[in-house]
Parts: sequence; C-alpha cells; structure tokens
Amino acid sequence: MSDVIRVGIAGLGTVGRGVVRVLEKNRDLLARRTGKQIELVAVSARSRNFDRGINLDAYRWYDDCRDLAEADDIDLVVELIGGSEGVSRELVERALANGKHVVTANKALIAHHGYDLAKRAEETGAQLRFEAAVAGGIPIIKGVAEGLCANVCEEVYGILNGTCNYILTEMEKTGREFDSVLFDAQRLGYAEADPSFDVDGIDSAHKIAILASICFGTRVDFNSVVVTGIRRIAPVDIEYAGELGYRVKLLGTATMVDGALDQRVEPFMVDTNYSLAGVEDAYNAVVFRGDFVEDSFFEGRGAGEGPTASSVIADIIDVGRGNVTPPFGVPTQYLLDAPAASRDELVAAFYVRFHVADEPGVLASISESMRDSHISIESLIQHGDADDGRTYVVLTTHETQEGRLRAALARMEKLETMVDPPVFIRIAAVSEENN
Amino acid sequence: MSDVIRVGIAGLGTVGRGVVRVLEKNRDLLARRTGKQIELVAVSARSRNFDRGINLDAYRWYDDCRDLAEADDIDLVVELIGGSEGVSRELVERALANGKHVVTANKALIAHHGYDLAKRAEETGAQLRFEAAVAGGIPIIKGVAEGLCANVCEEVYGILNGTCNYILTEMEKTGREFDSVLFDAQRLGYAEADPSFDVDGIDSAHKIAILASICFGTRVDFNSVVVTGIRRIAPVDIEYAGELGYRVKLLGTATMVDGALDQRVEPFMVDTNYSLAGVEDAYNAVVFRGDFVEDSFFEGRGAGEGPTASSVIADIIDVGRGNVTPPFGVPTQYLLDAPAASRDELVAAFYVRFHVADEPGVLASISESMRDSHISIESLIQHGDADDGRTYVVLTTHETQEGRLRAALARMEKLETMVDPPVFIRIAAVSEENN
Repeated sequence: MSDVIRVGIAGLGTVGRGVVRVLEKNRDLLARRTGKQIELVAVSARSRNFDRGINLDAYRWYDDCRDLAEADDIDLVVELIGGSEGVSRELVERALANGKHVVTANKALIAHHGYDLAKRAEETGAQLRFEAAVAGGIPIIKGVAEGLCANVCEEVYGILNGTCNYILTEMEKTGREFDSVLFDAQRLGYAEADPSFDVDGIDSAHKIAILASICFGTRVDFNSVVVTGIRRIAPVDIEYAGELGYRVKLLGTATMVDGALDQRVEPFMVDTNYSLAGVEDAYNAVVFRGDFVEDSFFEGRGAGEGPTASSVIADIIDVGRGNVTPPFGVPTQYLLDAPAASRDELVAAFYVRFHVADEPGVLASISESMRDSHISIESLIQHGDADDGRTYVVLTTHETQEGRLRAALARMEKLETMVDPPVFIRIAAVSEENN
Repeated sequence: MSDVIRVGIAGLGTVGRGVVRVLEKNRDLLARRTGKQIELVAVSARSRNFDRGINLDAYRWYDDCRDLAEADDIDLVVELIGGSEGVSRELVERALANGKHVVTANKALIAHHGYDLAKRAEETGAQLRFEAAVAGGIPIIKGVAEGLCANVCEEVYGILNGTCNYILTEMEKTGREFDSVLFDAQRLGYAEADPSFDVDGIDSAHKIAILASICFGTRVDFNSVVVTGIRRIAPVDIEYAGELGYRVKLLGTATMVDGALDQRVEPFMVDTNYSLAGVEDAYNAVVFRGDFVEDSFFEGRGAGEGPTASSVIADIIDVGRGNVTPPFGVPTQYLLDAPAASRDELVAAFYVRFHVADEPGVLASISESMRDSHISIESLIQHGDADDGRTYVVLTTHETQEGRLRAALARMEKLETMVDPPVFIRIAAVSEENN
C-alpha cells in the first residue's frame, strides 16, 4: 500500500458527520498513528443540499453511493447507510469484489450477510471491519477477536442497546410506565419514531449474533437468536426487582451448550452488586468470560456521533497499519455451522409476576401449580391489598428448565383468577467472582 | 514468516506456567486463530528441578535464559522473569537485536527501558509486545493503542494494582488497620513478603507510565511519576469516605496540562456512583477519556496465572497474525519528550483529615488557617468526643491548587493541637456523564 489511504464515505448522518469531523480535527495525529495519511476523497448521501454543519466542498460528491465501489482513487469505503439489503449491501459487495477495504457500522448487514461478505473479502484480499457495529465506542470487536483470543469463550453477554437501557433506567428512576417513558424518549430523540428495532430487541440481536460468531468461531446466525423485548416490563417488575436486589436489564447473551449455540436477547434480573447492574442510561457494556481470563468487562457509550466515529476511524487506522485479523477472528473456512440450542432446555432461575384477583386461596393455587409442575419456589412476595380487587404476586424460582416453566405458566394463564398472562424474567447467574 | 511460530519462554513462575497451559490446552484453537501453529520449543528458569505442576519434557531446557535469544529455531521470546535490569533486560535486548519478536509481562522493564527497546525492535523489524504488563488480563494496551486510537486522549486513569485494591477493600469491609490487613494478605499470598512495590505505588507507577506513553504519544517517563502509596490511609479515612459518598482507591492517572505530562499514583476519593468505585478486591480497571469516544471503561482480573497468560498469548497471536502496531502506538521517532507537569499547580478538590486535641477552639483554628491560605471549605465533619482527649476533624475543600494546600497543611502541622501530620486525599473529578 502507498503512504496514503484514500477513503470514500457513504452516508452522512450522525455517524458520517462524526467521521468527517474526526478525520479533520485529528488529521496529523491519525497520520502518525497510521503510518500514512488518511485522505478523505469522496462522499455520498441521499441529499446533497442539506445542512450537516460540516463543509464538504473539498470532497467529491456521488449521488449514487455505489459509485464509490468503482472509483479508482478510493482504497477504502466507509459504509454508514444502514440496512441489511439494498444499496448498502450492494455497495459493500461491490467494493470488496473490487478489492477495496470496507469499514462499516452496519450491524444488520453484518448480522445477516457477515459470513458471505467475509468470504468475498478473502477472495480479493480486501479487509472487512465493523467495530462500530457493536456497542458504538466500545472497542469490543477488537477486544474479543484479538485482546481475548487466547481463550475458549464460555459466555459473552451485555447491554447492547442504549435506547432500551435508557428506558429501563428512566422507568426505575421515575416509576413511570413503559409507554410514557418511550414517548418522552422519542420526543428527546433517544428513540426512533418506529422504536420496534430497539425495544423489541432486534438491534441487540444483530449485535449478539456478531459477537457470538467471533467468540465461538461459528458462522454468524442471526435467525436463531431468540428475542424478547422490553414492552412487557411494568413498573411493578422494576419495583419488585429492587426489593429482591436486582435491576431489570435487556441483555444479549450467547453461550455454547453441548455444541449448540444459545443466542438470546431478553430482559434479565441482574444482581445490583454486579457491574452490569450499574450501567445506566444510554451506556452499553459487554462481559466476556473465557477459560483463562475469567471475566473481562467493557463499558462505554453505545451510540452517538463521537463514540461511533471513534470506532469507525480505529478500523480505518487498523487497515492503514496493515493489521490483518480476519473479520470473525478466523478464516471463514474454519467458521463452524453450529446448530441452535433448544430454548426450552435452558436451566435458570426465574422471576415470575402474576396479576391476579385478590381473593382468598390465590396464593395457594399458584404455589400448588408450581409444585405440580415440579418447579421449586425460592421466595414469594405479595404486598397488602389493592383497591381494585386485583393484586400482584411475585415469586422467584430455584433453577428449572425454561420449557417446564413456560408450560406451567401456560396452564396457569387459564386460571379464572388470572387477570393478565404471567410475566417471567430470567435471573442472571452471577459467577462467584464477579463484583 | 512460515506457518509455524516457534516460541521460547524465559521464566516459569505463575505466569510462565499459565502460558504453557494455555498453549497446550487451546493448541488447535490458537492455531486456527493465528493462521499458523504456535510451537513451544524451549523453556528456561532458575531451577530445573522444581515441581511446577506441568510436564516440561517436550521442551528444550536452558539454564541461561539469554541463550533463547541466540537459538536459531526460536522466532519469538516470551520474557516472564521480571525486573528492569539484569538477565531479563539482556535477554530482551539481545532477542530484539537478533530480530526475534519479544512478548513480555515485565512492567518495570518497559517503564524504564521501553523507549530504547522499541527503537531496537524497529531497527531489526522485530515486534515488541507487552499487553500483560498492564492490568493483567484486561486487553488495555490494545484497547488504547488500537481500539481507541482515533482519539486525542484527555485522561487515562485506573486501579492498576490488585494488592492495594484488595487491602483497601478489606479495610472497608472489616474496619481494620492497614498493617493488620497487609499481614493477612501476605499470609494468604495476595501480597509479597516485601510489599513495598505494591503498597508504595511503584508497581502502579510502572503501569501508568506505560499507558501514558501510548495514550499521549510521549516517551515513557517513569521517573517523573509522582507516587504516593496507601500506607497512610487509616480506617477513619475509609469511614469518613463512606459518609461523604466516596470510596478510597489507589489510582494511577495521566493527563497533559499545557503540553506537560502529569503522571501520578495516589489514593483518591472516588464517588460511589462511579464505575471505578465498584471495582473490588484484586480486580483492576482503566478509564480512557478521549475527545470523541468520551469515557471508555475496562475491568477485569489484574493478575494471576490465567488472566496474565491470556494477555501474553494474545500478543503471540498478534505477532503470528502479522499485526504490526508499534509498541507505543507510533514509530519511536514521533514519540514526544514532554516535560513533567508541576505537581503543585494541579487544581483539585481535596479531603483533609486532622488528628487533633479535643479542645475548644480547634475547629475555629483549622477554619481560620484554611481561610488565611485562601482555601475554601466545602464541608467539615467532627464526630462526638473521643475518650482519649483527641479527635478527628475532616473537611473537604473546593477546588484549589495542590501546592497551596500543601503549604497550608505544612503550617498547620506545627500547631500545638495537631496530634499527627494532616493527611490529604484528592477527590476524583467525575465527568458529568459517568455513571
């Protein structure tokens, strides 16, 4: 490679603007660290006439971002458009086919097509990098693919979506309902107009699928992630969580169970003494547990102009330096095609909340149903009497199979005294040594 | 490089044994990740006849570790002997001179001679890597040299010594004196027979000097680190800290002040809401604050066989993959020779503890002395009366120059009512967005 690395950027939203700003502000520093100049040559976005607060006059403009993949004077394409299909995918595929390096923040694209794209990159010797796709400013892809690569990964999990974590933190601080907090978050720009990708867990699922692939050496497999979002979390759950010494967090988790890959996104009860419980607002955090390193914990901003741009630029510098770790840590030929673990066989302790008619015998019938399903109760709480003739009963179980609990709750849902379907939340197993 | 990387290990203590174990247990995984076999060829240690719990028969033995630097069939030397001088230094110098890559966990060596060794490595094209030298299993060198390298570093700081953090955590949990906790820590093997390197802050100073060099692009400058250990911390300080919403932590910190490098190791009062305050026992943690990424937080095991070996092996894999980030993030020609910041000009808020005769007017004389020194008091605590006619007065100041506070305390030390010299502890400035 020459002493210049020539860059084209597709997408000039928040992150694209941040990347331009870092390249301009830290120009000399980046050149020293890279060992060559990083020269922004061209940019592309949907609309040219839009005030982004940055001056783009010095850069060639393309109306069609795919032209970046064909330009002879571009070595590296930065894809910041988003979406798993359409022009972003075409751009990345063509750029790699033409031997151009690609740096992207596009988690959907990598979660759906990461394996094929990595193969394409291998064929032409181009680099494919996506540090910004997971946990924004936290250098977690590098952390697991390089920093912790001596280990057999035992588990990787974390808070991967800032919007959900913000909503859960606000619900805890204010005691308000999910819908009301979401509405405010949308007004403040912390949540999208269509919040589904975030609050239903899809965004976290993209990210855990990418992490799982690197950590376990498996082909990225988004479709087998079991996903539950946070819409069913009620203030009462957060209140009881506090009483039991937990905080409710939406976690993405991945682990191998007898050669099968267990990937999930779901709300968890996290012990308040555990580092993850202290991660508030829009922060992200990831825990990697390895056979030698034990637990390694990373926390930082999960989104935003500066943090995400930081990760995009780190990738560009890596390419410029000539660092050559494969996108998923090993050449694609070694990536395993692991089966998905059965959801029902997972063994864990659970929190269960019942909304029931406040009648004599309700507690007994819940206890009996659990006993009949061979689920052992660890604790059970019912507070006072409600005005409306309904009340909450909350219990925590000892370890049990998730399938058994689901079946029990499905039966109990039909009880006459049950006002709403029961809600259950897994309790995060905290390793002894966590603090 | 061929498809094998041939390794020699010097030093078979805890970490050396861990490295052998990882290489044996995860052999195939490491080969896939590295893209070549990592083959342990030879080992060296002080005594051959010592049961280390591992079988070394398959490896060539050297009585003199320096022979590893001359062996034609060794590509990479792992130096785990320790010490900034003597055979470890000779081994590393000779290995690099002979074009052999070096991976080391030796913080003293890198803190004292890192710059010269990096130059030597450049001359022969060898790699010099020392992930394990700072914060054990936490991949923090890679984190700051690569993952966060888009940023101008504003500050880097952390809990870098597990022994001190263990002692401070135990003092808080049990209310016991420093000496008593240290004695037990020695008995349990958590502290060395000569604890000075740890409890007087030297070990942390080695580590912050290394981090500062990478983060600020300066030549590693151990001698200008201002170091204060934890021997003067009394149970009463930890108790008052709790009352004021703090925990006492020994931090290494580095920042640039008007082009001068401010490097310190000293006890801090850390807000209990801040992630660092939750780091307990022998864990380490590092915070990097950059102009774009904001705060990035890393936590994990700071020592021990498995975690430290994890970092050593990660370095070997990096070399094997052909990754080529310079040891301090930039070629040595770019490393600045920054002057040391003046200790006295630092502006911070402080906690001050006075041990005084329990007489009328003592509080007034302390308040007056502070006022006369133009130091503004934020809060002041004195609890009840002591039985022995002595009492503690504790205050926190608003921001003031450290030099001014020192001068004031030096004057007050001479007051007749003063039983012991006053103890002051800096209060960690927590950025708004930390959680």
